[in-house]
Amino acid sequence: MRQEFITQMDTLDEDLLRMSRYVRRAMERAVEAMNTCDVVVAEQTIDADDRIDELADHVDDQCVQLLALQAPVATDLRIVITSLRVSQTLERMGDLARHVAQIVRQSHPSKPAPEPIQQKIDQMAKLVVQAAHNVVDALTDKDIKLAGKIQDQDDAIDDLEIEINKLVLDESIELSRQQIANILLLARFFERFGDHATSVARRLAFQIQGIAVAHAHDFPAEGN
Amino acid sequence: MRQEFITQMDTLDEDLLRMSRYVRRAMERAVEAMNTCDVVVAEQTIDADDRIDELADHVDDQCVQLLALQAPVATDLRIVITSLRVSQTLERMGDLARHVAQIVRQSHPSKPAPEPIQQKIDQMAKLVVQAAHNVVDALTDKDIKLAGKIQDQDDAIDDLEIEINKLVLDESIELSRQQIANILLLARFFERFGDHATSVARRLAFQIQGIAVAHAHDFPAEGN
Repeated sequence: MRQEFITQMDTLDEDLLRMSRYVRRAMERAVEAMNTCDVVVAEQTIDADDRIDELADHVDDQCVQLLALQAPVATDLRIVITSLRVSQTLERMGDLARHVAQIVRQSHPSKPAPEPIQQKIDQMAKLVVQAAHNVVDALTDKDIKLAGKIQDQDDAIDDLEIEINKLVLDESIELSRQQIANILLLARFFERFGDHATSVARRLAFQIQGIAVAHAHDFPAEGN
Repeated sequence: MRQEFITQMDTLDEDLLRMSRYVRRAMERAVEAMNTCDVVVAEQTIDADDRIDELADHVDDQCVQLLALQAPVATDLRIVITSLRVSQTLERMGDLARHVAQIVRQSHPSKPAPEPIQQKIDQMAKLVVQAAHNVVDALTDKDIKLAGKIQDQDDAIDDLEIEINKLVLDESIELSRQQIANILLLARFFERFGDHATSVARRLAFQIQGIAVAHAHDFPAEGN
């Protein structure tokens, strides 16, 4: 029973890590599709989201099974609770990567925005991909020091969203309505992704330290 | 011990219901603020979100305590797992009500959109408030028949978002860039709220029937 339990906990950990790597890959590919105006890569990213959703369901099932049949305690219990929450968040991050790819497809063969806005979007995209890397690393190494880094990236992402929203209102930059829509949604999707990355870090802190990190302070509320 | 456990489960149920009523109230007030262009009501809705966040943390703590100290099984376990997930979703629904109120405040003293777009937004808002009511009722009565209703409302909400996004691209309707931004975001927030309502229904089905309802079929994936 004990050996079986250890095996199940290891599988859960592996599946959650795999999920985080899929999400990182999805956002990397979505951003690559944007940078290179490659609609094929965008399509592949959209299709690949199903795999993340399936894995999320699978991780959830494992958590429920573990809680029901093994009644884990202490650290093990915190790991299962964290996995349940983090899989929900990673699933959403996968959706956001898909949404980004959908906008790239919509804008094809042009980039979503003209300069100087595209440059700001590119900066945001770079930070978002970095945050996705840090999420994988934090989960892999159970390293909450990375949480601070994710938080800093999230702050920078939020600032860029505000800058981009201001640029959209600047009538001296010529924009079609479709471009306005694409820019606003893209900035919003990146902002949500950064926020979810922070939420994963917050959940990980709970797992490692056994304390819930309060809303809206060091780690902001998860948003929507 | 058993009596204590029953009391704790009752408290958990009451707090989750209270949270759902706060969320319903928040969205009702946000929509009321929009309908009446009342910036005071908008401000109150924005401020009231803290209470929802606090309750979410409190519900989470109770779930963790119950899992750690009482090791619930069968139906009780499913109730705790569902509460953990639903509180996360309700917390986000509260954030979305706050975001709606923020747009109302931004647009003040005008409505967010000119006609005929405002009319579509009003239709969306009405459905969203109905969905919030159904979420409270479904959770109160543990009634998954309401889940089907929430699903239908969500479909109608999604259709309206598509219609509104098309209207925004219609150059014959005069819109400032600020209006475009407000309309797109408002439609997005309502769409997210509807999606989360569906997610609560899906979680409730798991609690009552003990089965996870698959992604993207009867109940769509939770999105972001």
